[in-house]
Amino acid sequence: MALFPWSSSSAFIYRSRHLSRRQPSAQLSATTSRLLWRALSLLSRSPKYTTLTASHISHIRKLVSSPSSVLSTLDGSATPDDLLPHNLDWMGKYLGQSKVLVKPKTVEEVSRIVKWCDKNNVAVVPQGGNTGLVGGSTPIHDELILSLSSLNSIRSFDPISGILTAEAGLILEQADSFLASKGFAFPLDLGAKGSCQIGGNVATNAGGLRLLRYGSLRGSVLGLEVVLPDGRIWNGLSGLRKDNTGYDLKQLFIGSEGSIGIITAVSILCPLRPLSTNVALFSLPSYAACLEVFSQAKQHLGEIMSAFEMFDSIAYEAVKKHGGAKKVFEKEGNFYCLIETGGSFAEHDSEKLMSLFDTLLSSSLILDGVLAQDSAQIHSLWQIRELCPESLSKAGKAYKYDLSVPVEKMYEVVERMKAHLKERGLLGGKVKCVAGFGHLGDGNLHLNVVAEGNQFSEEIQCVIEPFVYELVAEYNGSISAEHGLGSMKAPYMSYSQADTSIELMRLLKKLFDPKRIMNPYKFIL
Amino acid sequence: MALFPWSSSSAFIYRSRHLSRRQPSAQLSATTSRLLWRALSLLSRSPKYTTLTASHISHIRKLVSSPSSVLSTLDGSATPDDLLPHNLDWMGKYLGQSKVLVKPKTVEEVSRIVKWCDKNNVAVVPQGGNTGLVGGSTPIHDELILSLSSLNSIRSFDPISGILTAEAGLILEQADSFLASKGFAFPLDLGAKGSCQIGGNVATNAGGLRLLRYGSLRGSVLGLEVVLPDGRIWNGLSGLRKDNTGYDLKQLFIGSEGSIGIITAVSILCPLRPLSTNVALFSLPSYAACLEVFSQAKQHLGEIMSAFEMFDSIAYEAVKKHGGAKKVFEKEGNFYCLIETGGSFAEHDSEKLMSLFDTLLSSSLILDGVLAQDSAQIHSLWQIRELCPESLSKAGKAYKYDLSVPVEKMYEVVERMKAHLKERGLLGGKVKCVAGFGHLGDGNLHLNVVAEGNQFSEEIQCVIEPFVYELVAEYNGSISAEHGLGSMKAPYMSYSQADTSIELMRLLKKLFDPKRIMNPYKFIL
Repeated sequence: MALFPWSSSSAFIYRSRHLSRRQPSAQLSATTSRLLWRALSLLSRSPKYTTLTASHISHIRKLVSSPSSVLSTLDGSATPDDLLPHNLDWMGKYLGQSKVLVKPKTVEEVSRIVKWCDKNNVAVVPQGGNTGLVGGSTPIHDELILSLSSLNSIRSFDPISGILTAEAGLILEQADSFLASKGFAFPLDLGAKGSCQIGGNVATNAGGLRLLRYGSLRGSVLGLEVVLPDGRIWNGLSGLRKDNTGYDLKQLFIGSEGSIGIITAVSILCPLRPLSTNVALFSLPSYAACLEVFSQAKQHLGEIMSAFEMFDSIAYEAVKKHGGAKKVFEKEGNFYCLIETGGSFAEHDSEKLMSLFDTLLSSSLILDGVLAQDSAQIHSLWQIRELCPESLSKAGKAYKYDLSVPVEKMYEVVERMKAHLKERGLLGGKVKCVAGFGHLGDGNLHLNVVAEGNQFSEEIQCVIEPFVYELVAEYNGSISAEHGLGSMKAPYMSYSQADTSIELMRLLKKLFDPKRIMNPYKFIL
Repeated sequence: MALFPWSSSSAFIYRSRHLSRRQPSAQLSATTSRLLWRALSLLSRSPKYTTLTASHISHIRKLVSSPSSVLSTLDGSATPDDLLPHNLDWMGKYLGQSKVLVKPKTVEEVSRIVKWCDKNNVAVVPQGGNTGLVGGSTPIHDELILSLSSLNSIRSFDPISGILTAEAGLILEQADSFLASKGFAFPLDLGAKGSCQIGGNVATNAGGLRLLRYGSLRGSVLGLEVVLPDGRIWNGLSGLRKDNTGYDLKQLFIGSEGSIGIITAVSILCPLRPLSTNVALFSLPSYAACLEVFSQAKQHLGEIMSAFEMFDSIAYEAVKKHGGAKKVFEKEGNFYCLIETGGSFAEHDSEKLMSLFDTLLSSSLILDGVLAQDSAQIHSLWQIRELCPESLSKAGKAYKYDLSVPVEKMYEVVERMKAHLKERGLLGGKVKCVAGFGHLGDGNLHLNVVAEGNQFSEEIQCVIEPFVYELVAEYNGSISAEHGLGSMKAPYMSYSQADTSIELMRLLKKLFDPKRIMNPYKFIL
């Protein structure tokens, strides 16, 4: 894989270089070594996939209703620059060299394209909002990009049950705005809501900011429509909350990252929108204090707590410097916790929150705290938390890790990473800082290592990985809490999955996609 | 399949006679016809399975640590009566003729037994508390019964995260009592809690009384340990709330009814036990009133509503007559709704409930209502709802159907069944009554047709089925909301599943259990 000749992007295509030069270390488990070697061989373009030509493009064009649904550099209908936003991820880290982008407008069009690809051995990358963090939605080589953006209508909404059925390409924020007008909410919220699409959210099993309250998509997604790798449409949409008639097939597609089919529509159970929302932000002296405040919040707020987020002072400084946030606290701390409540009766919610405040103020757990007084202030406080990833990216070149670790040990991972980088002479030198933030309530840490410069460095990456995965394995954690595997973490899955699990997953992949045309070189290697 | 010669049970083994005599009617879909014929051929004992002898029993005995873990009529270590409670379901409807019961004490013993069965082509029925309603946990012929009862310890509980890891044979009520002592609750509750086991609950994907509050097991189960059909132990237990590293394999086993492996342990996320619980019971004039009260309850109670149950006057009369419930209301009605709240602050919960009462009392929606004043009264009110199934079984021979139907149409199914049975001259004659009750909040109806006598009648069953499944299909419902398919509904799954789904499920079954030794003649035919 090389940089596109037409691309002037300075993005450093880390993964392929990293894997093509690196020998698995002696410390790695046998399975990891196998996976890494497998990744090595799988990352070169496989000759089994057809190289598309202008003649193929003219065939593909016949499969869709509108000629503008197919954009290709092969027949001059697109320039490389037209395709760049689909070949490159938003972090500028993963760059593919696809020459074809197809934007079908109906599920039947998706079906016809996939069927044709299957017949003609054409590799396909399904793409939603391309907001992922693990290189899952951009091509590795010249795979056909199938974008769901034009398949974005709301098919139905039932205000009695709260069940929404909408197409994969619907932007999350648009889905939520539609639901807000009906008094409901989408049971998922995340920073990228303005760009990410609900099909991609489901394919990634996104977690986000309110999992604490509404649970995982595995509970709230009631049904899916999926185009299978052979082009068949599987209609598993459902208007039912309960259905115990066989294996729950939809679960295979939730979190499958486009590896065994393309999600084209989603039925999802949406909760009533809270009538009263409060947001408070605290500065705290230590992570131990964060844990104790979390415990107190659970007791005082009970069923109305809808989010409990944490970020450290490094992340907060980045937000102030690069995200434009104003100073909030008289007394700043080493840590910050954002607590949100969502309830049905404002007076009760305020009383519960005041009872928590009374307890906290009479303790030494918090240094300072603010409570939003209106929706503008709620938005401002949330912005501080939501701007953490973007601001750290602006602070330098950020190496981002999404990790699941038992909550009481969560911040130890940040401390140990700092010590490790210091020991290797990087922290304070090529590495500017290490920050931790995330969904404390779910034991989900986002670890960011921010380096000097604007290019990804192999040297730094090799010091971070696989160390970070070994650390997580030590805590019986997961190397991917909510971002998925993509191409970034696929070679490392044995740190979180047993050999038997990986074997079963490979068999499933083979069962659904025997020709391996779906999103190759990623996920299950 | 014949009645055991030693059995004096009057149980009428409905399914096999029904299927061996019946021709699929012209109205049935081609798939249903195929399934029924498939059922016909699959229901005869397959010669591919080994017929066990005393010599096999002595082999099996070597695989377990305690000789008393193996009970068999083949070597005289058990009498037919010893095995009867495992061969026959609690309704007296499904009777198998197994000659061997094995109760392993460790997962390694389960593994050794299953490995031996796989090697020797011995069919296995995994059995939990044997409280199912669809003939899923009793053998059809002479399958080996593998009971999980002796595998019942609590492996760990983490009070910070609320994650419990316990073995499959743990009784649900015992799990909940243990959690109660720690201030937590099991996120599932159902009438059979005193006998059912958590492994069986997960294998059935049980729904129960508080799904409305805590969601489906698909959201709360975090991990499983499963013995695969080839005897391998798959360790998918997890202490993490989030883990996006590959396909979510555990979901295949949740609700798989022992068809692709035996669940031996469960990790589950348990909520804090509500500090304040209220229960109210109302009598109402109509189902439309129930729907309106549900809507009002959602608005007034919001996040504290933990159950919304419904039963009709037929079910209530049965509970008064056969369940020993005393008269509760001055003004009885055609319908009854039970509402439970579970919150963290008693005063707030009472205020919310009073606000609902004020609204309801000033409307014509309710005829009468009672509010439990203490935990004894809470128990009494719940008993009325929980005794519905048992009391209807005592009122005659009850044909039980667990159906998912969009909530606003739910009771139409009962009305139309009554009309159908009347038209066929059965209601008021051989059929005494038709009752409906269930989890209104989830759109889950339990339809009971109660007939004279104490034997299941083929004539009545043939009038009910497949009519009831056709009805449900008309409403885009599910023929099994929470009870599963078992042997009862396996031939009818095409009423709720598309051909593509059934085909994919068959491929999954084949992938995991190529020799089909796991719970044969059921689930996926």
